[in-house]
Amino acid sequence: MGEIANMLYLDDLAVGQTFRSAPQPVSAEEIKSFARRFDPQIFHLDERQARQTFFQGLAASGWHTAALAMRHLVDSVPLAGGIIGVAVDELRWLKPVRPGDRMQLQTEVMDIRPGSRSRGFVKLRCTAVNQRAEAVQVLAATLLVSKRPRIA
Amino acid sequence: MGEIANMLYLDDLAVGQTFRSAPQPVSAEEIKSFARRFDPQIFHLDERQARQTFFQGLAASGWHTAALAMRHLVDSVPLAGGIIGVAVDELRWLKPVRPGDRMQLQTEVMDIRPGSRSRGFVKLRCTAVNQRAEAVQVLAATLLVSKRPRIA
Repeated sequence: MGEIANMLYLDDLAVGQTFRSAPQPVSAEEIKSFARRFDPQIFHLDERQARQTFFQGLAASGWHTAALAMRHLVDSVPLAGGIIGVAVDELRWLKPVRPGDRMQLQTEVMDIRPGSRSRGFVKLRCTAVNQRAEAVQVLAATLLVSKRPRIA
Repeated sequence: MGEIANMLYLDDLAVGQTFRSAPQPVSAEEIKSFARRFDPQIFHLDERQARQTFFQGLAASGWHTAALAMRHLVDSVPLAGGIIGVAVDELRWLKPVRPGDRMQLQTEVMDIRPGSRSRGFVKLRCTAVNQRAEAVQVLAATLLVSKRPRIA
């Protein structure tokens, strides 16, 4: 762990490997603030009015959930060179994220492909769960991951 | 247009129909502010350090681009009951979004399915382009869309 854990190269990953982020709460104010800028719809902005909508109460924007999941991914999967997504293969919102929910991200390495001399491709499956262990979002994504530099 | 344009029901949509948002600029400060909260990696945070990375300069987080595209979608496709995504079928970042870029969203209705008595499913393909008409992101998504209420 420690310094090595902060610098995972493609060589350090294996199919089936898992990572888990620390649970973090989501507040009503944060839900509304994100929505005002990116997704200004009443079910993301106003508790009272949201009750009359499809969501039957205030719910985070799916894009807010996705952005929070990215933060959890950056915090829990310490790749050398950073987390560089090339494609999202699946993104599904299974349950609304509500004010006060505590989100956590579970990540599994699904596939590793060698790619070029310096970088390869890694498929991850990331499941965001709430405090009741209900999946709220599933994301499958392909990342570009650096290989460990060779000593000449 | 006018009032009717703000209240499109499933019945008002047709395969091949297109929508276009107004171009909006993306600033360096916005890119960094989003990154500090959701994607704190140096290629989204610091112009100088970003030059040494894969992106060769400051670039918006893909999730920031996705969130901005959602704002363009909300502003340009006025669905009755709001824009409620049930699934993302494709999401690809084709080019980095840079400070000063002007983003615009082109949306096309790809498929319409009747669903239940009150709601149906609509597949949209949304292409975010920059001021050079280069596609920066492609998103294909399925929405839940209300049908026009019947008068008894």
